[in-house]
Amino acid sequence: MKGIHPSAYVSPAAKLGDGVEIGPFSIIHDNVVLGDRVKVGAYCEMGISTPLGDGTPLIIGDDSLIRSQSVFYESSSFGPGLITGHHVIVREKTIAGLSFQIGTFTEIQGDSKVGDYVRFQSNVFVGKMTTIGNFVWILPRVVLTNDPTPPSNVLIGCTVEDYASVAAASVVLPGVTIGRHSLVAAQACVTKDVPPNMIVAGVPARIIGSTGSIKLRDGSGRPAYPWTSHFSRGYPASITEHWALNNGEQQ
Amino acid sequence: MKGIHPSAYVSPAAKLGDGVEIGPFSIIHDNVVLGDRVKVGAYCEMGISTPLGDGTPLIIGDDSLIRSQSVFYESSSFGPGLITGHHVIVREKTIAGLSFQIGTFTEIQGDSKVGDYVRFQSNVFVGKMTTIGNFVWILPRVVLTNDPTPPSNVLIGCTVEDYASVAAASVVLPGVTIGRHSLVAAQACVTKDVPPNMIVAGVPARIIGSTGSIKLRDGSGRPAYPWTSHFSRGYPASITEHWALNNGEQQ
Amino acid sequence: MKGIHPSAYVSPAAKLGDGVEIGPFSIIHDNVVLGDRVKVGAYCEMGISTPLGDGTPLIIGDDSLIRSQSVFYESSSFGPGLITGHHVIVREKTIAGLSFQIGTFTEIQGDSKVGDYVRFQSNVFVGKMTTIGNFVWILPRVVLTNDPTPPSNVLIGCTVEDYASVAAASVVLPGVTIGRHSLVAAQACVTKDVPPNMIVAGVPARIIGSTGSIKLRDGSGRPAYPWTSHFSRGYPASITEHWALNNGEQQ
Repeated sequence: MKGIHPSAYVSPAAKLGDGVEIGPFSIIHDNVVLGDRVKVGAYCEMGISTPLGDGTPLIIGDDSLIRSQSVFYESSSFGPGLITGHHVIVREKTIAGLSFQIGTFTEIQGDSKVGDYVRFQSNVFVGKMTTIGNFVWILPRVVLTNDPTPPSNVLIGCTVEDYASVAAASVVLPGVTIGRHSLVAAQACVTKDVPPNMIVAGVPARIIGSTGSIKLRDGSGRPAYPWTSHFSRGYPASITEHWALNNGEQQ
Repeated sequence: MKGIHPSAYVSPAAKLGDGVEIGPFSIIHDNVVLGDRVKVGAYCEMGISTPLGDGTPLIIGDDSLIRSQSVFYESSSFGPGLITGHHVIVREKTIAGLSFQIGTFTEIQGDSKVGDYVRFQSNVFVGKMTTIGNFVWILPRVVLTNDPTPPSNVLIGCTVEDYASVAAASVVLPGVTIGRHSLVAAQACVTKDVPPNMIVAGVPARIIGSTGSIKLRDGSGRPAYPWTSHFSRGYPASITEHWALNNGEQQ
Repeated sequence: MKGIHPSAYVSPAAKLGDGVEIGPFSIIHDNVVLGDRVKVGAYCEMGISTPLGDGTPLIIGDDSLIRSQSVFYESSSFGPGLITGHHVIVREKTIAGLSFQIGTFTEIQGDSKVGDYVRFQSNVFVGKMTTIGNFVWILPRVVLTNDPTPPSNVLIGCTVEDYASVAAASVVLPGVTIGRHSLVAAQACVTKDVPPNMIVAGVPARIIGSTGSIKLRDGSGRPAYPWTSHFSRGYPASITEHWALNNGEQQ
């Protein structure tokens, strides 16, 4: 794929940076700004218009990769280095920082904020009004809800603080805060706030210990948390060097 | 999008009402009837033929909106006002009433009945033989199963009665009935019938109270259920006026 | 659909068997081998190149059916008779045997092995390093995980042994083995190995009995397990005759 594939439809009103590539059968609508070297795979639809938007364009930062079959609405903004899986859906008024990764089949319903260096794995569901900090990990099939008494007009988003990790297939109930550096175990249903550095598990989720008690499963005997003490893949050296100096602690 | 996009393939055998719009790269097969003013987004495939059908066409009622990347088989029928998200899959012999809404990534496997004014949010899975009443809410990631002893040839569908609400990521086991105006809490596994107006929660789900005990989270102190006492968005005034007169009670 | 649709892009470097059919708007990349009579639906992308591959092609065995909107990477291999639903994603280095069925919205992340006659229903998530035996059933929305302390570099895949059945919406934790002919109940979280012929249920999952205690729900009073004693749909007679002779027992 180089440049704009002849089968793609690119609105003349869309603003494309240098070196942008658009795959076969993709559609770039009017209200779209793609940064330099952004690659959009096949069958993607970028910048769908909606009355729920605020008139601002869909902005995709430099050096981003949107994999095939993905759909983005207008009035959302992503910093440089966005990488998506396939079949991703992102609605309007989603504002994300640097180097966001969004797994295949993930849906972000809009009106949400996402910090820097956040990783969503596959099939994550993010309801409106969600707030995600920096360096957060959301694993496959997690659901972040927002309606405490469905159906209602009272949408209360979840908050996931910096460095927290939410394991596979967990559900976070409306208004709940997952504390900094905490861990939600797989298949949990989190009904109450989780303090920092704690592990919660079960339906409903209960605190089962502190993250400091978990060892890596690599035979080293080293602690698994804070994960910043041993995991650096995909982050810039300027950040991970700082982690290394502080044994994974962040200020 | 106006009319039929030049990149779409529309069978001459398909019947299209007045003002139908078909998006880029979409495919309308032979055995399809689209009502007046139906809009079909990009990359949709409507009316796939199957030996499991009964020869009847895929019928989409007037004023419906099918969002991009969705797939419908023949031999299903939808009343006016169907609205879907993206990447929706509906198999044959699904019969739905008025104003059905189907969220993104939802799959309906067919041989099912859905009443009027039903809302499925994102990523709902509906096994064959399911029966859904009127005014039902199914929240994201809910699974309605049908095989009591997988794998087997004994498919027993679930039933969700009028006005019931099934919260995020819950599973309903084969043959279970979710009673009228009841509430299934998030991440539950419903193994037994739920009586009307009750709340169930947990794995396995147990009755934890009546819906009358839940207050709205809007600070008003008003009861959250029946939800028809306070929630009217998306329903016609002729219906909601009746709800208002009866404090949300339905006869 | 007959032959190659004129809107499809098929690399001249791809190797296509006799009678191959390629649907509208599909893309067949260079490093692809499609067996005889393989049918690829609309909007499919086959053989995406990746630096994580090993240089080998995507190989799809004879008489396979890939339904629309599916995506396969290079360096994976499937025996004859592969059948997929729609919107399926399969990454590199997935090696599967005969007659594999993959449900709609299922994602296989690669570096995995799958035996013969395996059935994945809809929306299954398979993490890297997973091993699946023969005649296994994985029901909708199941998650097979691999990271014991997310995030980490320690990926430990799950194993599902021959004839085991994992019911809807269950999660299997990293490194867990689901024993031969065992049954994981719906919405379970399996944290420990499951012995053969046992049923586990709950969060966390516990053994609740042996599969021999479950009766079919067809009124016959016959045992539901081993399921090979009563279920034969989709398997060749040469295999099911053997099952019938042995009352469902396999050696």
